[in-house]
Amino acid sequence: MIPIDDTPLCRDGKVLILAYDHGLEHGPVDFEGVPESADPRRIFEAATHPAVTSVAVQKGLAEAYYPSYEESVSLLAKLNGTSNLWMGEPDSSVNCSVEYAAELGASSVGFTIYGGSNNEIEMAEEFRDAQEAAREHDLPVVMWSYPRGQGLKNDTKPSTISYAARLALELGADVAKVKHPGSHSAMEDAVRMAGKTKVVMSGGSKRSDRAFLRSVKETIDAGGNGLAVGRNVWQRENPERILDALEAVIFEEATVDEALAAVE
Amino acid sequence: MIPIDDTPLCRDGKVLILAYDHGLEHGPVDFEGVPESADPRRIFEAATHPAVTSVAVQKGLAEAYYPSYEESVSLLAKLNGTSNLWMGEPDSSVNCSVEYAAELGASSVGFTIYGGSNNEIEMAEEFRDAQEAAREHDLPVVMWSYPRGQGLKNDTKPSTISYAARLALELGADVAKVKHPGSHSAMEDAVRMAGKTKVVMSGGSKRSDRAFLRSVKETIDAGGNGLAVGRNVWQRENPERILDALEAVIFEEATVDEALAAVE
Amino acid sequence: MIPIDDTPLCRDGKVLILAYDHGLEHGPVDFEGVPESADPRRIFEAATHPAVTSVAVQKGLAEAYYPSYEESVSLLAKLNGTSNLWMGEPDSSVNCSVEYAAELGASSVGFTIYGGSNNEIEMAEEFRDAQEAAREHDLPVVMWSYPRGQGLKNDTKPSTISYAARLALELGADVAKVKHPGSHSAMEDAVRMAGKTKVVMSGGSKRSDRAFLRSVKETIDAGGNGLAVGRNVWQRENPERILDALEAVIFEEATVDEALAAVE
Amino acid sequence: MIPIDDTPLCRDGKVLILAYDHGLEHGPVDFEGVPESADPRRIFEAATHPAVTSVAVQKGLAEAYYPSYEESVSLLAKLNGTSNLWMGEPDSSVNCSVEYAAELGASSVGFTIYGGSNNEIEMAEEFRDAQEAAREHDLPVVMWSYPRGQGLKNDTKPSTISYAARLALELGADVAKVKHPGSHSAMEDAVRMAGKTKVVMSGGSKRSDRAFLRSVKETIDAGGNGLAVGRNVWQRENPERILDALEAVIFEEATVDEALAAVE
Amino acid sequence: MIPIDDTPLCRDGKVLILAYDHGLEHGPVDFEGVPESADPRRIFEAATHPAVTSVAVQKGLAEAYYPSYEESVSLLAKLNGTSNLWMGEPDSSVNCSVEYAAELGASSVGFTIYGGSNNEIEMAEEFRDAQEAAREHDLPVVMWSYPRGQGLKNDTKPSTISYAARLALELGADVAKVKHPGSHSAMEDAVRMAGKTKVVMSGGSKRSDRAFLRSVKETIDAGGNGLAVGRNVWQRENPERILDALEAVIFEEATVDEALAAVE
Repeated sequence: MIPIDDTPLCRDGKVLILAYDHGLEHGPVDFEGVPESADPRRIFEAATHPAVTSVAVQKGLAEAYYPSYEESVSLLAKLNGTSNLWMGEPDSSVNCSVEYAAELGASSVGFTIYGGSNNEIEMAEEFRDAQEAAREHDLPVVMWSYPRGQGLKNDTKPSTISYAARLALELGADVAKVKHPGSHSAMEDAVRMAGKTKVVMSGGSKRSDRAFLRSVKETIDAGGNGLAVGRNVWQRENPERILDALEAVIFEEATVDEALAAVE
Repeated sequence: MIPIDDTPLCRDGKVLILAYDHGLEHGPVDFEGVPESADPRRIFEAATHPAVTSVAVQKGLAEAYYPSYEESVSLLAKLNGTSNLWMGEPDSSVNCSVEYAAELGASSVGFTIYGGSNNEIEMAEEFRDAQEAAREHDLPVVMWSYPRGQGLKNDTKPSTISYAARLALELGADVAKVKHPGSHSAMEDAVRMAGKTKVVMSGGSKRSDRAFLRSVKETIDAGGNGLAVGRNVWQRENPERILDALEAVIFEEATVDEALAAVE
Repeated sequence: MIPIDDTPLCRDGKVLILAYDHGLEHGPVDFEGVPESADPRRIFEAATHPAVTSVAVQKGLAEAYYPSYEESVSLLAKLNGTSNLWMGEPDSSVNCSVEYAAELGASSVGFTIYGGSNNEIEMAEEFRDAQEAAREHDLPVVMWSYPRGQGLKNDTKPSTISYAARLALELGADVAKVKHPGSHSAMEDAVRMAGKTKVVMSGGSKRSDRAFLRSVKETIDAGGNGLAVGRNVWQRENPERILDALEAVIFEEATVDEALAAVE
Repeated sequence: MIPIDDTPLCRDGKVLILAYDHGLEHGPVDFEGVPESADPRRIFEAATHPAVTSVAVQKGLAEAYYPSYEESVSLLAKLNGTSNLWMGEPDSSVNCSVEYAAELGASSVGFTIYGGSNNEIEMAEEFRDAQEAAREHDLPVVMWSYPRGQGLKNDTKPSTISYAARLALELGADVAKVKHPGSHSAMEDAVRMAGKTKVVMSGGSKRSDRAFLRSVKETIDAGGNGLAVGRNVWQRENPERILDALEAVIFEEATVDEALAAVE
Repeated sequence: MIPIDDTPLCRDGKVLILAYDHGLEHGPVDFEGVPESADPRRIFEAATHPAVTSVAVQKGLAEAYYPSYEESVSLLAKLNGTSNLWMGEPDSSVNCSVEYAAELGASSVGFTIYGGSNNEIEMAEEFRDAQEAAREHDLPVVMWSYPRGQGLKNDTKPSTISYAARLALELGADVAKVKHPGSHSAMEDAVRMAGKTKVVMSGGSKRSDRAFLRSVKETIDAGGNGLAVGRNVWQRENPERILDALEAVIFEEATVDEALAAVE
């Protein structure tokens, strides 16, 4: 962890990452409900919303689309990822070097660790290389900290999420992206375990406005620093509307009701 | 994806790759019908046809034969490949470095990824190295995107081909070579998933002139950018004739009937 | 082994490492009894006690918290470690390079070897790289020498601990951290096997003041050079009190009774 | 494939490699019939025969014996090889770097590929490194192309040998060393598949003068470029005599009868 | 093999290595009979005997103890080795780089190869790196050539020892350390297979003075160049006495009786 409040990844110490690595991780199936969401331009456009502190994409999308948005969007280059065609133990190939991410204009990098996978050791060593290279380029590091694999039955158990948050701190991530553990106190515990490392909630699959905003609010109230969200934004017909609401909750201390009222 | 329209791989934004890596991938059996097709000179000669934007071969053929064709043919160096003597999970050895491909005069490179193979992770990391090295040499990258391996029963299912096309975009390929998914709308979907990455149809095993040209036309009509073809050219007695027809369909907006009539 | 008496890791030839890699190795469960022990600042504060010759943490904690304690605490960067989510044969990922540890201000490094694990060969080769890099930076090397894995049923058997101590000497560690083998003579044997390499006892899980201090005293009396302790310090309500007692036993030749009396 | 006719490996476009890696590959058992054949000097002496274009040995023999023969013998450094104590899938360790081979005075290098082995992928990638390094040193590359391993029952089937010859061309070898496929037409097919890559027959186990010479003659008549022979030379009491006959057959267009008559 | 007669490893072309890597390879159990043998100083002292041409130790012992003996002892740095806690196929971790061995003052290096192990390929490639690095530092290379592993039932069979000796020659070792194959003629055969590579007998477990010296004498008479011995020296109460006898047998052409008589 290094101080990152002055980097583009943060706004007033908070973080809102618009994640869009689903084309790799889940495949076209994620775009079925809102077909235009398959077009990266739609998401880069959404990322120009002032609530969004960075857009998280794989190398290929950054190469192809980021040049048109360099002025208006901040880029988080996701360094590893894997298709869901993969049938092995949870693992993630390193698809982009930190050096190349920096060339592409990234102002931060992201890296997945599957704690508890039979590939945990190898992934942690790849993370070491990425993290130390990121330090050389003064790039904040966000860890997608997702315990998963042999022996981990329920990966949103509070103790698992707390451990996930701690792993991010211990291994040197600046931001831990973790799943919501299900309660205010469990999220509070995760935040406490992360120490100086910021904690952002993983948006997960699409829910109702209210249910989704409530979990975001709970994260903020528990001391969390924001959100990394994909489907709950771009699987909506009107991404801007939910981003307005998220801005209210994350950056303006609004309640869920206030945020929803403001976007009616 | 980077802009490649001004490179030798493209002509008017379209692509016609004459592929000839079959001696490695399939072995001499592919040359049985037209014995002279075993002689690389025949294929390099065919590649001088104005319809062909590049010839795709392994390092050894490039070393031995390309020096005689440097003026008249554009070289795509296929960087990986494997014999079909291989009995393991789908995999492909990296037979040529990008640096050496550049020395040989390649103006683009090709790389196979077997998404869903137990070797997908490793192949994707090898692709990263190749793709980033290609960027340093300003060489367009064509991905042979062929989901295959444990758990993938039908690798031409529309959803699989769409995923294959998306993988090419996400991982940073400039052109995705995919199998035809069987219908216009399925190919259209694959093209849409590939975003700015160009999509070329894989020629596959030999078919009748009409059946073959119809699938090419369908690819073009679906927004695809062309073809990578081997057997359907050089397993014909007269490669030039089918190349004439392909030129009409791909570059001159001819119908299949018009193209066939023109070559009678 | 190289002379290390003049380095910050030692005081009068003795060593007292305050270990705090439990957030990685064991997870938040270790902080449950004394919740504030989850906060690294509490441990860095404790490490300002004159008895502590170094604090041992993973890279992430060093990055985040050490900058505030550079003047008052000496840093031992633990180079490898693994979460207990890991279900495979005992192994430890190398989470920090020696170069980066040196940049962080470390004055020594730590490395775990699980002798007898199916990963022993690989770990020993990683140790080689770390040890030789540490020599280039003039950093003492502490080996966490913990035989563990297939075929090792009781890893505190005297012969196992003696072998563990010897491994540290043979492979080039300056300090061997081993478990207490259970008796004065067994510890004496381990110290003898370690030759010029210093031996420190591993603190282990929390015990009563008297039981804990007695094993430390036994280590010193057997010729050992000190202690690497975590839970027996920071799982106590008052870490300073036990550190006072440890200082008496390790550095001032006090008996257990004298040490306990002094801190009443 | 690059032009190699002007290198020491060739004489009038033909090749006769005296192979002597049997001490590694087969062990001392190969020397039992002619005990003095265990002494490398005997083979280096034989290699001074004008028919021999190069002697093929492992690094150790090159180091120990080649300094005495630098003026009179041309060295082919065999880069990989394995003892027959090895019980795993066919594989070959890379025992010598190209750089070191060049330092030893090698004027060409040799490399084994077991196509179809479960180690084919790794071997092909090692070949890539060796081949590209050889290009930097302007050293011709001879591939011992021996399909072998899981799923390959009869490795001298004509189609297998043709494939083996083609692999050498595709992967960038200048000379393919293959087993004789059993007939003139099968050898002709292998030669045709190898394109510009020269094909030399593998000598194999010891046979009668006539049977051996007949297969060599058949290779030459089929368009092959020569022979790599070990046991059929140095397991004979008089190596010089068979080399005289080979010279007649390979370089002087003699029939088998003429060659045999000349050495009576 | 390179000429090594003028290096400290040899005296009059003969070699007597005092081996002391048992603390790593076997563990403290080897020191039980003569407890003071656990102290490396005792062995370094013994190595000052004029009969000893080098002492063979792991990196750690060299670091800790060799500085006091640089003037009086010649150092052979054993580069690989493994504890007997290891339960896998025979293997040996590379514990020391050649570069570091040279820094430590080594005048030769040692490397174990387990021919026939499932790790043979990997070990041979590690040997290549070590051997070629040793050449850059002009350091003689001693191979501990010990066929062992899956499929090798009796690793002292004459044909196995002859193969082991040949492996050392083929792979580029200057000295082959092999087990005694049981008879004069078998040792003679091994020496013959090793060609210009020197052969030294492995001392093995402790035997009577006479039995031990007889096998050494047999090795010398068979053309062997000496001995690498550990336990048969330092498991004796008086190492100097047996070294006197060994000096007589190895360097002064004494019979066993003469050697024994001289030390009565």
